[in-house]
Amino acid sequence: MRVERLRKMMESAGLDVTVATSYENVAYLSGTPILTQRMIPERLAAVIVPLQGDPIFVLCSIEEAQAKSGSWITDIRGYTEFVDAPTTVIADCLSELNLERGRIGIESRVLVHDHFVELANQLPAATLSGSDTIFDNLRAVKDATEIEILRRAAQATDAAIARGFAAGRLGSGDKVIADCIAQEIQGGGADAVAFLVVGSGPTAAIAHPSASTRPLQEGDVVRCDVGGYYAGYYSDLARSAVAGRPTQEQVDAYRKLWEVHEAVIGAVREGMEASQLFRVCEREFVARGLEMRMPHIGHSLGLGLHENPMLHPANHTPLLAGMVIAIEPIVRLRDGSILHVEDQVVVTKEGSEIISRSRDWSTLYLIDG
Amino acid sequence: MRVERLRKMMESAGLDVTVATSYENVAYLSGTPILTQRMIPERLAAVIVPLQGDPIFVLCSIEEAQAKSGSWITDIRGYTEFVDAPTTVIADCLSELNLERGRIGIESRVLVHDHFVELANQLPAATLSGSDTIFDNLRAVKDATEIEILRRAAQATDAAIARGFAAGRLGSGDKVIADCIAQEIQGGGADAVAFLVVGSGPTAAIAHPSASTRPLQEGDVVRCDVGGYYAGYYSDLARSAVAGRPTQEQVDAYRKLWEVHEAVIGAVREGMEASQLFRVCEREFVARGLEMRMPHIGHSLGLGLHENPMLHPANHTPLLAGMVIAIEPIVRLRDGSILHVEDQVVVTKEGSEIISRSRDWSTLYLIDG
Repeated sequence: MRVERLRKMMESAGLDVTVATSYENVAYLSGTPILTQRMIPERLAAVIVPLQGDPIFVLCSIEEAQAKSGSWITDIRGYTEFVDAPTTVIADCLSELNLERGRIGIESRVLVHDHFVELANQLPAATLSGSDTIFDNLRAVKDATEIEILRRAAQATDAAIARGFAAGRLGSGDKVIADCIAQEIQGGGADAVAFLVVGSGPTAAIAHPSASTRPLQEGDVVRCDVGGYYAGYYSDLARSAVAGRPTQEQVDAYRKLWEVHEAVIGAVREGMEASQLFRVCEREFVARGLEMRMPHIGHSLGLGLHENPMLHPANHTPLLAGMVIAIEPIVRLRDGSILHVEDQVVVTKEGSEIISRSRDWSTLYLIDG
Repeated sequence: MRVERLRKMMESAGLDVTVATSYENVAYLSGTPILTQRMIPERLAAVIVPLQGDPIFVLCSIEEAQAKSGSWITDIRGYTEFVDAPTTVIADCLSELNLERGRIGIESRVLVHDHFVELANQLPAATLSGSDTIFDNLRAVKDATEIEILRRAAQATDAAIARGFAAGRLGSGDKVIADCIAQEIQGGGADAVAFLVVGSGPTAAIAHPSASTRPLQEGDVVRCDVGGYYAGYYSDLARSAVAGRPTQEQVDAYRKLWEVHEAVIGAVREGMEASQLFRVCEREFVARGLEMRMPHIGHSLGLGLHENPMLHPANHTPLLAGMVIAIEPIVRLRDGSILHVEDQVVVTKEGSEIISRSRDWSTLYLIDG
């Protein structure tokens, strides 16, 4: 089914074969996520899909047992790391398919330059063509199974954040909150925590700080932006709170931020361009006297954390029913602290459905307040 | 200091400037790890080091506050994502340094092909030269601060595994063990869990499975291979156990594996080649009638998980005092299950020092035994 859709796109693009090498596309096409593609990207894996005939799954022999038990692809070619060059195995497969002179779609946004050069040298008569957009489009609309995974993931992550905030205390470090969130994500069905950003006080002004043991003080902003891996898919949510008693500026800014957030989510319509949603957000900021400083207001997600469409002013991709997007407006307070909220929604025929709320976040959460 | 060492290497290689773009090298040279380089690699960051004059730190404006508070580099150039192409900002910096015709060292093993092409098109008179080996060598020997971070990281991770094994029960899934290990890594000083591989029974035959809720049965092999991020640095340890009562095959295989492991660690000498240590391991396997199937027996680590030297037969890098290497022999039982142990050692003038043991693992650990 996925391969059939890919082949239609390949035909339109005049490609004879595609060679997927990113974690995301190898997982999508093979049906089995290869964990080490994220950790050790130089351990190249590839799914080769010719216009006709069976796909070939190339990967390091270390991962062969997983491919055999987890993938529907039966033609699996294991290579011995440090003995066989993976690009040679791929080039040999393409020769076997009589595609030495073919038009070959590769992921030039992901394939590192050295691997590209090795492939090109071994296939001097072939045309290697960057086909990342084809893969973006292939994965953009999620099927029912994917939406269900993403929904469970987002719900569980939101609940983990709520428990983390509840564990925070004046005088304790924000690391207590970070550790609790990590534990709850891990125990709440994730395979692993994917990323864990918790900042407070001085580090609430930094986009991606490490958690700290500095004691939380009255009025500190606490911001988290966290995600887990669930069956290969990401969650990605941000929530903001204040320790103890908030200032009027914090309360007002959060109220406005939340109004903007709800307005943007409410404006999602099938067929609108990503850029249009960005402009909605910009207008809502301006209408409330807020400064709009974000280069993007969110992104699609799935097997990848930032998938296309990215919600920025130059992205004219239409939103389609079945896309899952994270919407994440940010305001800055006078001291530089970031208030940040992020929810995931599914684009529907009627508008959108929020899939990431385990509780009501419409008023500013007060930690130990 | 690091920059001065780099400049000496650049001079020997005839380079006018280097452009570091990997997470590892940007963290190493700037002194501040940019978390999103791992999560969102297309959000390019770069440290540009010319032979003379101040280095320049290029990164997305979203991360500018972190660079300003965390880096010793004062010339920081933020770009606006989706508005400015990061490669254009880098090319402009190189022009400003009058290096349009220069010999420019890049990380061609890490830089993706599209970014390479963009850079090359904007610098048509320059020579872009893959300089990954220079960076490998720059980072290979760890300083005292790095060794201290790696030691604390490895100790904490080993203790987390011991607690995880202690939490396992016959009838419970290995996910209980995985969750406990994750919690202990997170609570034991890590910024985050980096990777978490726990397999048992059928998944003990897979290199990198996800943890499962299948109830542990008497005689199941339980294997874990886990690591955390600690101040930007990795830990990486593997331990193996059996649930309940082990078979004689398991006890014997583990004993032999441990003997091999200790022999390899004991054979580490400054000046020997990585390949020689591999051959020692091979001989120890053969001497015990074990089949040697691993393409490598370990790797250096630090800011990166697999750093050079990799311990494989074609790697002739000499081991140097101050390198931190992970040694990880594996044996397979008749049913395909993997027994795997991994320790981290610092190469010293006298031999090596193990930095990763929180307890004695010399006899097979029995979970709920």
